Amino acid sequence: MNLESLITQIQPLDSKAMAAAQARQDALTKPQGSLGRLEELSVQVAGISGKALPRIQDKVVLVMAGDHGVVAEGVSAYPQEVTPQMVANFLNGGAAINVLARHVGARMLVVDMGVAVPIPPHPSLIVRKVAPGTGNIALGPAMTRSQALQAILTGAEIVNAQIDSGLDILATGDMGIGNTTPSAAIAAVYTGRSPKEITGRGTGVDEAGMRRKISAIQRALQVNRPDPTDGLDVLAKVGGFEIGGLAGAILACAAQRRPVVIDGFISTAAAMIAVSLAPQARDYLIAAHTSMELGHHLMMDWLGVKPLLDLQMRLGEGTGAALAISLVEAACKILTEMATFGEAGVSEKEVHE
Amino acid sequence: MNLESLITQIQPLDSKAMAAAQARQDALTKPQGSLGRLEELSVQVAGISGKALPRIQDKVVLVMAGDHGVVAEGVSAYPQEVTPQMVANFLNGGAAINVLARHVGARMLVVDMGVAVPIPPHPSLIVRKVAPGTGNIALGPAMTRSQALQAILTGAEIVNAQIDSGLDILATGDMGIGNTTPSAAIAAVYTGRSPKEITGRGTGVDEAGMRRKISAIQRALQVNRPDPTDGLDVLAKVGGFEIGGLAGAILACAAQRRPVVIDGFISTAAAMIAVSLAPQARDYLIAAHTSMELGHHLMMDWLGVKPLLDLQMRLGEGTGAALAISLVEAACKILTEMATFGEAGVSEKEVHE
Repeated sequence: MNLESLITQIQPLDSKAMAAAQARQDALTKPQGSLGRLEELSVQVAGISGKALPRIQDKVVLVMAGDHGVVAEGVSAYPQEVTPQMVANFLNGGAAINVLARHVGARMLVVDMGVAVPIPPHPSLIVRKVAPGTGNIALGPAMTRSQALQAILTGAEIVNAQIDSGLDILATGDMGIGNTTPSAAIAAVYTGRSPKEITGRGTGVDEAGMRRKISAIQRALQVNRPDPTDGLDVLAKVGGFEIGGLAGAILACAAQRRPVVIDGFISTAAAMIAVSLAPQARDYLIAAHTSMELGHHLMMDWLGVKPLLDLQMRLGEGTGAALAISLVEAACKILTEMATFGEAGVSEKEVHE
Repeated sequence: MNLESLITQIQPLDSKAMAAAQARQDALTKPQGSLGRLEELSVQVAGISGKALPRIQDKVVLVMAGDHGVVAEGVSAYPQEVTPQMVANFLNGGAAINVLARHVGARMLVVDMGVAVPIPPHPSLIVRKVAPGTGNIALGPAMTRSQALQAILTGAEIVNAQIDSGLDILATGDMGIGNTTPSAAIAAVYTGRSPKEITGRGTGVDEAGMRRKISAIQRALQVNRPDPTDGLDVLAKVGGFEIGGLAGAILACAAQRRPVVIDGFISTAAAMIAVSLAPQARDYLIAAHTSMELGHHLMMDWLGVKPLLDLQMRLGEGTGAALAISLVEAACKILTEMATFGEAGVSEKEVHE
């Protein structure tokens, strides 16, 4: 696989399937449009899958982990050792994303894309470490251009392998102490907004930490001068290995006509990289929720997506995306399982004179 | 059972269980507060149930149906025959609420509280018809005071019987052509807002229908002069049988310490009746979603509740509440199934000097 062929595989949504899904929605026993976003979602998934009656059965939550050299700038409330500790928590089933993935009936994949230390082998851990953590973006690039390409292609390969064993929807998730910092840098590059307008408190950094974080992002942009017209350049200079992996996973979903549910701040930064490389991938995205992280709404505006949920969450891991999977599944069940007016013998709307 | 004893049974939330739930939330492997509304929900359900680790297993969607004499004023886009037709659709499993109740693993109850025509018997239909439709509220009261009492006590009895066979959470739902009209009248009585500020298009009435609907509500308020300090009077004068039944179901949930998820416009009107009778019932309510129906947000402000979802839905039947059940269940699973920092061996937040 190479990046160009991955990108050229991504086709527009299937307008015929969408029209058929919309026609069925309009014939179901409810006032037209009365299920709002659920109706829209079902039509989008029809267009993505190319099926007028799409089914969501095999659900996958993909959590990618990586470390970030920029933690040396004091940008996070938690020490870097938490990245592998939380990966172990994922593998043992005790993290929030485990609970929510189980709740929505999704299987969970945990990938080490670039954690700084070796993680003890575990049957459920996929190790695809590009390098043991990125460089400190406040001082230089996060990674080389070839590492950026490797991260993206690795994410795509993992999704392709999962599609072979059944994947009707993917939810993206992340783990990496410090990773709101490169994500905010990516958002600043694409939206043209200042780091101050985008940067939030991540896991809960204090005032002094916020100043260090904003300063680190400002320096990262000045030192690296990422080129917003070149997604690989942005990823290489101010990104992260898990962010690159998620961008590749998103591109593979779009190429293989699978809906991909984008979680919060970090996943949205990955989606920006993916869409900057392949603008037509945008139509395959489903935005799960509005994160509490400051600039998240600006990123979603740039992507042109509308979040489904607003539960004041800011955890990452794919927690928002897992909850949204259930809504997408509900939307497709409405489309496929409800009776039409004709089938149910229910009278249609009256036209008052 | 009588109404007074039902009301006096409703106790404040259990603050000890809430404190224990909050302490556990703060020890789980995530930054404190990072799951936002899910954390709040879990603490509320702990307070409701009196259990520090509440479980949501037996889930029930209660759909109550009734007809409305005010349809004679031309207030609805659909003919009255649709009420029994949709009840049949519920019993056959083909309506939106059937799909969503199945999706969240809830059993569904369908109650005829006052449909205008007899509905053919069905093993799943609970018939508790107070009368075959209400009076036309634009001309006089919807029902007598004793019918209002009967509707409320019937709703409470149905819930009590369900609690005996297992009920950890109830979602309210409604069916009744024309029932946004009495609901808007109830909302106008309690909020003091004019019918114009509250009345929406219901199932999709046209401009002329909207004028007829607003006029009918204005006349209902003038003719009946419902007393906002007397919930039974409001229900009797401008309510409906399904609305009274849902108000009773809400009171019974509060009395029996079960969380009750309020659906859209009609269910919220029922909650206003319940809370006007027993203000302490408010803490047992979980607002599912913001309906597209115009004044719904004013009603939720009056109740002091914050909706979980905003999916631009306006169907009723309990569809929003069914989706919200899944969020409440997720919230309780987070509380009970996640590992703590200590259990998982994850480092806690650093204090930067």
